Order: sequence, then C-alpha cells, then structure tokens
Amino acid sequence: MLAYQKIVRFIEDKIDHKIWSVGEKIPSIRTLMQQHSVAKNTIIRALIELEKNGLLFAKPQAGYFVRKRPSDNQAPQQQYPQSLPSMVSVPEIFYDIMQRSAAFDILPNLPAAPFSNHLIELHRNISKAQRNNRNATMYYDAPLGSKQLREQISARYRLRNSYIDADELCITFGCQHALFLALFVTCQPGDNVVVESPAFYGVVQLLEQLQINIIEVSASPVGGIDTKALAAVAQQWPIKACVVTPSFATPTGATMSEQAKQHLITLANQHDFAVIEDDIYGELSFEQPVSPLKSFDSDNRVILCSSFSKSLSRDLRLGWIAAARWMPDVIRLKLTSQLASNQTTQQGIAEFISKGNYRRHLNYFTHQLMLQRNQLISALQQYWPQDIRYTLPNGGIALWIELSANHNTTELYQHLISENIVITPGNLFSCSNCYPNYLRLSFNHPTTGKRLNAIKKLGKLLSS
Amino acid sequence: MLAYQKIVRFIEDKIDHKIWSVGEKIPSIRTLMQQHSVAKNTIIRALIELEKNGLLFAKPQAGYFVRKRPSDNQAPQQQYPQSLPSMVSVPEIFYDIMQRSAAFDILPNLPAAPFSNHLIELHRNISKAQRNNRNATMYYDAPLGSKQLREQISARYRLRNSYIDADELCITFGCQHALFLALFVTCQPGDNVVVESPAFYGVVQLLEQLQINIIEVSASPVGGIDTKALAAVAQQWPIKACVVTPSFATPTGATMSEQAKQHLITLANQHDFAVIEDDIYGELSFEQPVSPLKSFDSDNRVILCSSFSKSLSRDLRLGWIAAARWMPDVIRLKLTSQLASNQTTQQGIAEFISKGNYRRHLNYFTHQLMLQRNQLISALQQYWPQDIRYTLPNGGIALWIELSANHNTTELYQHLISENIVITPGNLFSCSNCYPNYLRLSFNHPTTGKRLNAIKKLGKLLSS
Repeated sequence: MLAYQKIVRFIEDKIDHKIWSVGEKIPSIRTLMQQHSVAKNTIIRALIELEKNGLLFAKPQAGYFVRKRPSDNQAPQQQYPQSLPSMVSVPEIFYDIMQRSAAFDILPNLPAAPFSNHLIELHRNISKAQRNNRNATMYYDAPLGSKQLREQISARYRLRNSYIDADELCITFGCQHALFLALFVTCQPGDNVVVESPAFYGVVQLLEQLQINIIEVSASPVGGIDTKALAAVAQQWPIKACVVTPSFATPTGATMSEQAKQHLITLANQHDFAVIEDDIYGELSFEQPVSPLKSFDSDNRVILCSSFSKSLSRDLRLGWIAAARWMPDVIRLKLTSQLASNQTTQQGIAEFISKGNYRRHLNYFTHQLMLQRNQLISALQQYWPQDIRYTLPNGGIALWIELSANHNTTELYQHLISENIVITPGNLFSCSNCYPNYLRLSFNHPTTGKRLNAIKKLGKLLSS
Repeated sequence: MLAYQKIVRFIEDKIDHKIWSVGEKIPSIRTLMQQHSVAKNTIIRALIELEKNGLLFAKPQAGYFVRKRPSDNQAPQQQYPQSLPSMVSVPEIFYDIMQRSAAFDILPNLPAAPFSNHLIELHRNISKAQRNNRNATMYYDAPLGSKQLREQISARYRLRNSYIDADELCITFGCQHALFLALFVTCQPGDNVVVESPAFYGVVQLLEQLQINIIEVSASPVGGIDTKALAAVAQQWPIKACVVTPSFATPTGATMSEQAKQHLITLANQHDFAVIEDDIYGELSFEQPVSPLKSFDSDNRVILCSSFSKSLSRDLRLGWIAAARWMPDVIRLKLTSQLASNQTTQQGIAEFISKGNYRRHLNYFTHQLMLQRNQLISALQQYWPQDIRYTLPNGGIALWIELSANHNTTELYQHLISENIVITPGNLFSCSNCYPNYLRLSFNHPTTGKRLNAIKKLGKLLSS
C-alpha cells in the first residue's frame, strides 16, 4: 500500500466510525503531515482521492470537511395509490421530452467526450465486418439475427446466472423495439397490462399506441414493484402482461430482491399473465452481477428485452428479445414489420464481445458511472435544498429525486428548456400525475464544468 | 464510331427490319469480313457484343443465329378474378420462402461478387461518420432522422419530377418498415385495403399481421393495377387504403402509365382512401426516370415508402416514408416502437449521395441489371419450354413468368429447395391461389456459371 493510500484508509476509518462526523472540519494538512510523518504531497494526494470519492469536500481558505454521504440520505417515498385499469393518454409535452434523447443529459448541447479506446475498437470491428461481408449487401439477415452475436449475448447471461440459449434470442432494433414486439404479440387493444409506478415512459407511450389499458402498481424506489399490491390487482382484474425493469429501473434505480422476483413469477404462473422484463440496465451494476428475472422463469412466460444502447452506444440500434412461448409470433412480426437487422453491425459487436473488449469496456464504464453518481450526489448535497430525497442506485445511469411538495417539475421543465437545460419531470413516469414534485437526473455524464453550473443554477431556483 | 460498332449497327439494322428473321443463321464471319473489309477480330468483337445484348446466339460449329427477342415475347395474361374483402391467412410455406431472402437469387448459396468501387466508397463514408460523430453514441437520433440525408433524398425525387420537402420525409428501418408504419396509422383491424394482384407478398403478410381485410384487384403484368376494376370495387366497398407499386412492381415489373396514376388519385380523392406507394424500385429504371405516384398527389393522401435495400445494399436497413397527412402519427409510432434510426449510417449515405457517387452507382448498376435481364431472358429462350410467357420490365430486378397450366410452382419450390435452388412461386403474390403456374425470377445476379446451370436444369424439369 502506498503512503497516500494509508492516509486515505486512516481518514475513511475515522469517518466510517463517525469519529469525524458529517460537516465537521478534519485536521489541517500540516497536522496530518506531522501525525503521519509524510510529505505534504502525500497528504494532498489522499485528500484529492477522498474528495473524488465523495467523502470530503474542500472549502477555499478553510480546509476539508466531512461530506454528508450518499447513504445518509433518505430515499423518496413510495406513494403511488392503487389505480383502476384505464386508457392511456400521454400529454403532448411528454412526447416533446421523449424526442429530446436529451433527457439523459442536463445539458445535451455540449460537445460529447472523445471516444474511449473500447468504442474506437468497436467501430473498427464494425468497419471490418462491413468490408468483409459481401453477402450482406445482397441478402437479408436471417430472421433471428446473427448466430455469432446471439451466442455472445447468451454467454453474457451465463455470467449473470441465467441460461438463455442463443436460439431463444432474436435480435431487434433496440430495447424499445423489443418491448413493442413483446406487447404486440401478448396483448390486444383493450387488454389490461400492469406497469410499475413510476414506470419507464416508453412503456406508457407504447400502451397508448397499442390501445392497451394500463394498471399502475406501486413500486418502491429501492426494491421495485410491490408484489403484494400486484397480487391484489391480479385478484381483481384479468391481466395479460406485467412490464417491469427488475434491475436498476429508470427512473429510480430500484432493483428487485430475489424474493420479490420469485413472488412475481409465482403470481404470473398463478394468474397466467406474461412477464415482460426490461433488462436494458442489467449489465450496469456497480457491484455484483444481478440475475435477470428471466432466470426465475419456470413456465416459459418471461419475455426478456434489452439492448446495447445504454451499455455501448445509442447509435447501434441493436437489441434483443428472448420471447419465451411467444417466440414464433415475435419472429413473424419482426419479419413482416422490418424484414431484417443489420448484419455487419451484429458481426462487429460479436467480435468486440468475443475478444473480451466488451467486458473490459463494462468494467471501465460502470466504475466511471459510479464515480459520476457520487459526483452528482455531492453536487446535490452542496447546492440543492437540504430537504430533497433521492435514491442511491447501485447501477444504471439515473436517480430519482423528490422535492418538497410545493415544486412542480413539469413547469420547471418548460421554464428551463429555453436555457437548453433539460430535466426529466416525474409525471413522465406515470399517467396519473402523481409525481408532480419528482424528477429524474442522469449521471451518464460527469457533473463538472457547465453541467455542474447547471446543477448549481437549478439548486438556486429550487431554494428561492 | 469504332469499326466493330459499325458492324453492330449493320446487323442490328438487319434484325430490326426483319431482313434477317428470328432463328435465321446470319452470314459467316468470313462473309462479313469480306463485305465490310475489316479484320476478323473486328467481326468477332461485334458478334460478342450482339450476343451479350441478346440479339444473337451462337451454335457451336454452326455459326450465329438471330435470337427470339424479348419484345417478341407475349406477356403473361392478366387473369385475377375480382374478390370479396377477406381475412388474410398466409400458409406457413410462404413464410419459409420469405425467410430465405434468397428469393431474389436462384442459387443463394454462391459466394457474392466483390464489392463495386461505389460500395467500397459507401462503406468508407459510413466508417468515417462513425469515427467522427461522437454525439451519436450518447444521444438518440432526431425522430425524423438526419436532415442531411432527407435533403439528399428530396433532391433525388426532384430528378424524378417530384417535389418532396426534406421535412415531409421520415427515415425508417427499410421499406417494409415504412409499409408497416403506413398501414398501422391508416387502418384498424377489420378495415378493407386494396392490393394489386399479383402483389408484393410483404404487404399481404402485413395485412394478415394487422388483421386488415384484403381486396385483390387485377393488375396488368405490364401496366399495373386496373383502375377501372378499382373504381368498381370502391363503389361497392368502403376502402381505407390502396397499396400499389407503380414503378417496376414485384413480381411483374409493371409500371403504371401517367393516365392510370391520375385515375388512381382521382378515385382516392373521390372515395377518401389513402394511397400507399411502394417506390422501392423507383430508381431502377433502365430508361428515362419514372415519376412517383406521389407527384400526382393533389390532396395530401399519398404515402410514399421506399429504401436503399434494392438500389444500394440490403444491409443498410434504411428507408423512408413521406406520410402526407398521417406524418404526426407515423413519427409517434416510430418513436414508441423503435425510438430512433442509426445516425452514422445516415450520414455516410448522405455524403455518398452528395458527392455524386450514388448517381454514378445507379448509372452503372441499372446498366448491369439491364444486361442481366437480357442474359436471363436469353437463357429462358434457349433452355425453357417455348410456350412460357414472361414480362420484359424496363427496370427493377425481377420478371414474372407464366408456365403452361399443368405446372405447379409451389410444388416445384418444395422439390427444388433440397437442391438449394430457390424459385419464388406465383401463389406467394396473392392470397387467392390464382397463380399456381406462375413464378418470379430475379435478374439481380448474372445468369452465368452455376446459376445458368440451375436455369438449364429447371428448363429440363419443366420440359419433361
């Protein structure tokens, strides 16, 4: 262990044991130098490290202070009241938000960061596939998509304790497309579908498009859908499908416990409904890999939907679906509605994964996301009102914030849009207007520079 | 004019004026040499050219003979009897055929030809866009797609006498996807939609998927849909939409006259139905550019669907839709069912078009297709029964063949599939089983080598 790491460990220990408590000034650099008989630079390096990790913050001319830690925060409250099945009608403004893919960046007009080496390698793999596959220009892809890629995806699931055969997978044009296929083949207009509340807005909008009735069931911002509430709903109404994001759900970052997953599967078997699993954040865990709900499927009724949009690039337009008993219908629908996927992109990704570059990319990327989460939380603690509550997701790219009841984030969205600041208002995630004072913020980008300024500005607005 | 070209002209003239008639042996090489006072090689070069263009054929040890010319052939007969609106039910075997994108190649297992320089340049453009557009990995594409590409597509339509603004276009995942969007937003389950007979099978299968009733209206293998028959149908039944391929339709290669286009538009205005134009072969004319039906649209009700799959590469998965009054619904459906298109591919294609390479590619490609059409027809004339009838399309990639009534091409398909020979049986293009003795053959590939052998083999089978 290097000298500076010993200092880090020493200070962490003091904070962990609350010997130095939140808001307290820690000993000066000079004092620490003397205590540990090390050079000034060693102490400074340790303090910078601790600041980056969100344990300390510096006040100019004053010294270093113990930061309120993410885990000291209280999560937003679970507050969705039970609803009746109802037709979905999404207000125009929410389509406006969805059209700004922006919603995952508070300042979407900034120039993007340079590509990582991993992404450069991915682009090389795709270009190479394009140069080499002459057949692709003349013949459409097979309906299921590239076997090579499906085998790689299958191998990824094995790492998450889930056995999905390559031939149980069908390549799609992204996760949203997979969700569309799943809902189209399992439901007819007028059927009832359960979603968690808050839910991914893309699903809410799909239900409107397909004229499917929505039943919103309360979900904990920490543990996901309330399966007891779901049991009550399933007793009361016929349900065709239940759509959930069991791992690092948007907007909350919630992850279902193994027991909750098991309970959901039991209910689905008992009441004979399809379970549609949105697994798009499944690989973005900051800790241990998380098993998909699909791995609990005992009756071939969990349809898993995912894509590379959040883990690699939104521009690939490549996702997948494991459609269980509905696979033949999904293949036919894909064939008649799109014909085929892009072969060379699939081959490029397959090579990228098989050479270990996807694994290396994810290691790097999830670590970055964790640091960015801490950075965002630090900024919220410093610059936003003290009474906010927010989730502390261990994966994914966003967190869910509850403001005091007097705030309206939809109005705030409209107010900010003229300044090119984009927030995602809470009511986008439900069709019952029950999250007027909530918002989702993403840590997909570092909270530094202009983005930090935007967070500060927002903090001022919310405090005034 | 080179010496050999003068000989070509001389012989063409004799044949055109029927001085030398079909089947007749032309003067020997020695005679021609003496007549024209040119070298042997000059005569041989002229004969090879005439053979390639389908005017002559060589019999070993015998000399050159005047070939039955494509235009001497009689087109298949227009024979579809009027139908009632009915539910579509596509037999499994036709999904099997559709899954072999193969249907446009009689021997799909052969290795593909090397890329043309144009396609190599296109791939370079796409790779470059991928390297340069860092934003694309982080943000989804705008709902309409790349403005740059839409402007280039708009410019292409101006060359065909049609003014479609870039903002009237929405990028899709191919033409089939555009057709899906068009039918989804104009029709509900149970509505009636008119298609031409024979029709593109992808449309028939879409109607089945969307539970829309089909009304088949007779189409001439030369001039497309019979608008008088359509008028009678529109009098009798409520119609929501009419799907046609006005330019070089599959399977026949038929192209509607300007009068027929005008009549169709008048009927649509009068009976208030949407016109869905499949323009995928629109740029593959061997002669003058052909105006799309959309250019006759006087009431914002023609939805134009197309893609680059047939003109550039099937692997791009990029098409477009000009959805007229249904544009807002199409954008919303694209957004909820797929989110966005691939940005870098769009940018690569836009650059490819703007630099004139698409124009150059099409000049080259359509000329190749014409030669390949002649090659295929030559082979049919030499090796298939004399009583077949076939179309002589001036564009597109396929022709439509009528065999004598005792043949069944669906059975033939099943018989041949074990030998890796793929034909497209006539009944795929209707849901009334009225084309049992028809088939479509594509001239997307040269009829040489193994493909020529397959055509010979088929000829033997059909003659036995």
